[in-house]
Amino acid sequence: MRIDILSLFPNMFQPLRESIVGKAEEKGLLDIEVTDFRDYTTQKQNHVDDAPYGGGAGMLLQAQPIFDALAATQAKAQTKGRVILLDPAGKKFDQSVAEDLAKEEHLTFICGHYEGYDERIRTLVTDEISLGDFVLTGGELGAMVIVDATVRLLPGVLGNGESAPGDSFSSGLLEYPQYTRPADFRGMKVPEVLTSGNHAKIAEWRNKEALRRTFERRPDMLKNYELSKQEAKWLREFQTESKES
Amino acid sequence: MRIDILSLFPNMFQPLRESIVGKAEEKGLLDIEVTDFRDYTTQKQNHVDDAPYGGGAGMLLQAQPIFDALAATQAKAQTKGRVILLDPAGKKFDQSVAEDLAKEEHLTFICGHYEGYDERIRTLVTDEISLGDFVLTGGELGAMVIVDATVRLLPGVLGNGESAPGDSFSSGLLEYPQYTRPADFRGMKVPEVLTSGNHAKIAEWRNKEALRRTFERRPDMLKNYELSKQEAKWLREFQTESKES
Repeated sequence: MRIDILSLFPNMFQPLRESIVGKAEEKGLLDIEVTDFRDYTTQKQNHVDDAPYGGGAGMLLQAQPIFDALAATQAKAQTKGRVILLDPAGKKFDQSVAEDLAKEEHLTFICGHYEGYDERIRTLVTDEISLGDFVLTGGELGAMVIVDATVRLLPGVLGNGESAPGDSFSSGLLEYPQYTRPADFRGMKVPEVLTSGNHAKIAEWRNKEALRRTFERRPDMLKNYELSKQEAKWLREFQTESKES
Repeated sequence: MRIDILSLFPNMFQPLRESIVGKAEEKGLLDIEVTDFRDYTTQKQNHVDDAPYGGGAGMLLQAQPIFDALAATQAKAQTKGRVILLDPAGKKFDQSVAEDLAKEEHLTFICGHYEGYDERIRTLVTDEISLGDFVLTGGELGAMVIVDATVRLLPGVLGNGESAPGDSFSSGLLEYPQYTRPADFRGMKVPEVLTSGNHAKIAEWRNKEALRRTFERRPDMLKNYELSKQEAKWLREFQTESKES
């Protein structure tokens, strides 16, 4: 996969090199290039922003540097690919969007900054994505989040020790509680079943606790989840318990 | 505000120095310290993870290094403050959570990594927060997103040019379309009203377009929004248009 990132702050992308994304690059599964679109401005003093028409505080990114930077990176990649703008008005990012993006061969992220950007920049993009209902100082962190969530789904990226299936959201339930050594940490003990060696009982306990956590914290996730007979029985049990307490 | 971050990858936090958060530190409004909790392990070869009880792929972060690193940073800060764990099962992060966190004097973020962490680590935290319904390789990017969204709300952090009110979500509507020079960019023109100099008309246009964008893209946001009489009229207009098209 090829990933282009257009940003005024190329140094912000250092974390990607440190993480699983950096390892994917080393394995040759991924090629990430960060382009400073300031390099493409045709204006004096390398300006890339200007005041909004109609007045108001703040500066807006201008269309020209981003139009020309994108044309250059698309020419270099020899594909247009998907062009993603991080924007609060975009489609909410979730695991299904990550799975969709992971199928592509070329992604480009346009990172806004300052107060906003010229509306005409939206004509360049195939996808507007929002990380959530909050405001960040720029699109860089959002782009990194999307790259991280997407790249870890590429075949060969995660080692055996970091398997992607079984994660929260891919199974439809939140993850069950997990424990590692020591069995007794400052008086807090691991549930006995996990040290019993009885694999069927362990699997059952994990299934039940994943369902319990989802019921307690994210009941909305159960609307799209197909319950087994056993799970339906547990769910009634949790519902009764929560009424009694 | 003091922010402590406990992570195995302290170098990942470089972006914070580059951004508005770095400027806030320079202004003395913020003190961010990143602690590598590997420095606190009592185990041979500086291990911080081990296999899960009950079997399964992946390694889990152990309780001891995080318990001891947190005790040390809390002692140094002389306050316990809010302790935040990034977790898919946590409360969904949004602008109201950022506003809540911005009122605190001391925040600590615990960044998980690998397949997960020992359940007993949850006993340390005051808040479990989820960035959204997707899976990342670690808590670092999520912590940076929360820090960025929170710090920009602190008084004095944003300059005049980057005002926080008027953002999407704080007004209850998405932001209206914005334009900057040139008025005609490769045939795409700025809406005439914005270059008219008529401030009342410009304000009206912006209000209407913010409402239109919210209606088209995030109708769910209108449920909690108190419409003015004029806005209610526009909304009926949009509804009629969308039925006709």
